[in-house]
Amino acid sequence: MDVRAYLAERSPLVDRWLDDFLPAADEPPAQLHAAVRHLLFPGGKRFRPVLAMAAAEAVGESPQASLPAAAALELIHTYSLIHDDLPCMDDDDERRWAPTVHVKYGEAVAVLAGDALLAKAFEAAAAVLPDAGAERTVLAMRDLAVAAGSRGLVGGQVDDLAYEHDTPDAACIESVHERKTGALIAASVMVGARLAGASQEQLEQLHCFGRDVGVAFQIADDGFDEDEDGGCSLVRALGREAAEARAEALLGAALSQIAEWPERAEPLRELARFAVRRDR
Amino acid sequence: MDVRAYLAERSPLVDRWLDDFLPAADEPPAQLHAAVRHLLFPGGKRFRPVLAMAAAEAVGESPQASLPAAAALELIHTYSLIHDDLPCMDDDDERRWAPTVHVKYGEAVAVLAGDALLAKAFEAAAAVLPDAGAERTVLAMRDLAVAAGSRGLVGGQVDDLAYEHDTPDAACIESVHERKTGALIAASVMVGARLAGASQEQLEQLHCFGRDVGVAFQIADDGFDEDEDGGCSLVRALGREAAEARAEALLGAALSQIAEWPERAEPLRELARFAVRRDR
Repeated sequence: MDVRAYLAERSPLVDRWLDDFLPAADEPPAQLHAAVRHLLFPGGKRFRPVLAMAAAEAVGESPQASLPAAAALELIHTYSLIHDDLPCMDDDDERRWAPTVHVKYGEAVAVLAGDALLAKAFEAAAAVLPDAGAERTVLAMRDLAVAAGSRGLVGGQVDDLAYEHDTPDAACIESVHERKTGALIAASVMVGARLAGASQEQLEQLHCFGRDVGVAFQIADDGFDEDEDGGCSLVRALGREAAEARAEALLGAALSQIAEWPERAEPLRELARFAVRRDR
Repeated sequence: MDVRAYLAERSPLVDRWLDDFLPAADEPPAQLHAAVRHLLFPGGKRFRPVLAMAAAEAVGESPQASLPAAAALELIHTYSLIHDDLPCMDDDDERRWAPTVHVKYGEAVAVLAGDALLAKAFEAAAAVLPDAGAERTVLAMRDLAVAAGSRGLVGGQVDDLAYEHDTPDAACIESVHERKTGALIAASVMVGARLAGASQEQLEQLHCFGRDVGVAFQIADDGFDEDEDGGCSLVRALGREAAEARAEALLGAALSQIAEWPERAEPLRELARFAVRRDR
């Protein structure tokens, strides 16, 4: 299958849902609402929402069943990027060839736009679709909250910052990747599948799948440039060859979790391969 | 009734629930988990959680039925205080006679501790109690998300900052108070009552009640000192006498919403009076 075409077909569903859901950029306070949309439109590949929809499909439901929760994943991802870019964190001026939110709207509005996106994620996820029902919706919202919290994304970011001028070992680096990236990728596939009625066994397999894909993706996303300055780069810790091998091993472990799943899980498997191997 | 005794009796329920729920202060990353607890323990009066429990009681349920959601309100309130205190916002060094979170743990950890608290709020609120059921729980979580979002708390804070060196008129000031304070107070009583099975009519009455109590509380909380520097102070805009009268009028409007409610709504009414009149 053509995974780029698959992404290109699914991501506009997310774009449209988000555009309808979010206040217009000129709704007062206009600074805030423009800032909330700044990094979302035009967006990236909507990888996490598309993963959620592919996970719903893998357990036999239409992708639409998980659309609000899928959109919530993009809102959480976007909030985390805005806060990561802040002067007190990574202090980045540009992202996706545009000024970061704090450069364009100021630091206070950037913090608050991130806060608003995180709150909006739970408003989005609270849309109960008839097929999913309230019980699954609450559990999905709980998955999102746990992934975003201090044992997930936020905890990973704290350690990532702490290691910035340090030389952490491979286990510490993978622990950061697992929380900062793996937790939300794991939540993506779990939430999509949960709303589609996945069994407990399927959810456990998807949790491991998502976590390992997330770590492998992050290893690959850091690039295979050995001249990195320090901080959480597995290439810097292990060298290029070993880091590439580790990413491949994690991808293999992830795929083995759902290897027996039927043909309709193929998009999920392909998305995992694409996330890790991408341009290679 | 003795409202101080009522608060003193109920707030330890919230304290205990939060203490059990949150990671220990020494759980890694320890900086983060200590920061998350810093402003929560010892806490304030737990006014929002106690309001939620009083609202549950007012519609005929035991206060315990709303305890997780009540705790979620305190988590959201605390996150907002941590972010409000940041150097890029109000730049406060002290709160409740202790250093603020960013002074003690640094700015990055303060932003992230706030983020973690906001995420944790939804994890807390996702605890489905048998009496409440999943449907009411999702709606309560949605109430929380809307109150915390860009049309509620966050939007109010953006405008509050924008007016900092300005002289807004009374309507603008009340609009800020309504979102920055009123939205979460309204959510407190709505969530408590919703989980206890309130009717749509009761929820609408409580929404107006909470909003007006919130604005009146904020007017009173700003103090009746006319020497304020500017920004969102109704006393500065209207003078002491008119501001006091306005707070009383709002309290009266709030109480009229639930004037016909039975005796078991008396704690809710007393809490409203206490919030606005307090030490006067």
